[in-house]
Amino acid sequence: MKYELYYWPSIPGRGEFVRLALEAAGCAYLDVARSPDKGLGVPRLMRFLSGREGHELPFAPPFLKAGRHVVAQTANILLFLGARHGLAPAAEAGRLWTHQLQLTIADWVDEIHDTHHPIASGLYYEQQKREARRRAADFLRNRLPKYLGYFERVLARNTRGRGWLVGSRPTYADLSLFQVLTGLDYAFPRTMRRASARHRRLGALRRAVAARPRVAAYLQSDRRVPFNEEGIFRHYPELESG
Amino acid sequence: MKYELYYWPSIPGRGEFVRLALEAAGCAYLDVARSPDKGLGVPRLMRFLSGREGHELPFAPPFLKAGRHVVAQTANILLFLGARHGLAPAAEAGRLWTHQLQLTIADWVDEIHDTHHPIASGLYYEQQKREARRRAADFLRNRLPKYLGYFERVLARNTRGRGWLVGSRPTYADLSLFQVLTGLDYAFPRTMRRASARHRRLGALRRAVAARPRVAAYLQSDRRVPFNEEGIFRHYPELESG
Repeated sequence: MKYELYYWPSIPGRGEFVRLALEAAGCAYLDVARSPDKGLGVPRLMRFLSGREGHELPFAPPFLKAGRHVVAQTANILLFLGARHGLAPAAEAGRLWTHQLQLTIADWVDEIHDTHHPIASGLYYEQQKREARRRAADFLRNRLPKYLGYFERVLARNTRGRGWLVGSRPTYADLSLFQVLTGLDYAFPRTMRRASARHRRLGALRRAVAARPRVAAYLQSDRRVPFNEEGIFRHYPELESG
Repeated sequence: MKYELYYWPSIPGRGEFVRLALEAAGCAYLDVARSPDKGLGVPRLMRFLSGREGHELPFAPPFLKAGRHVVAQTANILLFLGARHGLAPAAEAGRLWTHQLQLTIADWVDEIHDTHHPIASGLYYEQQKREARRRAADFLRNRLPKYLGYFERVLARNTRGRGWLVGSRPTYADLSLFQVLTGLDYAFPRTMRRASARHRRLGALRRAVAARPRVAAYLQSDRRVPFNEEGIFRHYPELESG
């Protein structure tokens, strides 16, 4: 079965967490809204979002069509793919622990988004720039160190070792953590450079994910959407200078 | 086995979604931080949060101790309890659909929180009141109708009927939706009153949850923590007048 991924075509956004899992697992998938083919593209995504096809109704992209079912919410899609494609432990405790880490990453991603959109996602950054400066300063001073420290500690406490978050094999949470760290480097390069010495395990995890053969091939391909100033991770130098 | 719930004692907050599931399922549980017993209370919660006991490390409360495992992240705890206590369908598609709805509720709850804390959760409301007015106005105008409309539509589309979100029986997502609607009534009474005529299915769901015998008994008990101005749902009249 070929999956269908539905996500906005011009940003990595939350869709990228799903794309990384599909790529790392070697799944065949159609990236619907990025396809130039007739009947696909954004109109097809909008049609699905309207729920006119009778399936489970998503609130927002990303969503994944798998046979006759539609699964939405990034962490929920990863829960589904993780169980099907060996990207999470099979036993209940490990499965829940992986999902718990993913949901913490999701909270982190929300906070990263809100550094440039603290007032309204429907307004432009320029319409909330003053508030964004205040929120970003708090994020970089208080929240970012808390998240980085937490995941560094989770890695240190994994007695099964080898540098992954859960057990001895990579899970979808490792892939997502790679994406967050890479995005943070793009958005806040000075802060992340300063933080790197205190978070060596995070740096090693990021390199280890990027070196997985399927991931490495994907990152070089044009299927990978580059970071830009329309997505979650945006480089606005004024937000880093406080 | 008796569960142990760990959450801040003075607010309903995110812990309340877990408490409602435990109560509706008739589970025995110890509300650790609210216990006056020696060795319990907030110090016990803080000790667990530090991870000194060697279990899975939570990022933040709530978390639930179940035997030797600790499960954190509200939606993840509900996924766990739902499977164990019949608060979600057993089949994969229904299980994922219920979880998807729960994760959408979680996003909604985050946005409700940020109406009074758009800049920093570590600052007081009074320190971000101007920004809160702006964010709350956008929330009430754009986001709240979108969420209410979405869940009203999910109820309308449930062909198995009987007024629940998923299939023909209540799930943890129904319990959580009840809590959000009740909290919104507390925080934004005028707006919710105006919205009620257009969302009759939501009103019926709320009454149906409150009428479940175990839930009704719980809501009357002192185990239920009342809404207040320290939690997620706060009544600040100035945020409703725009």
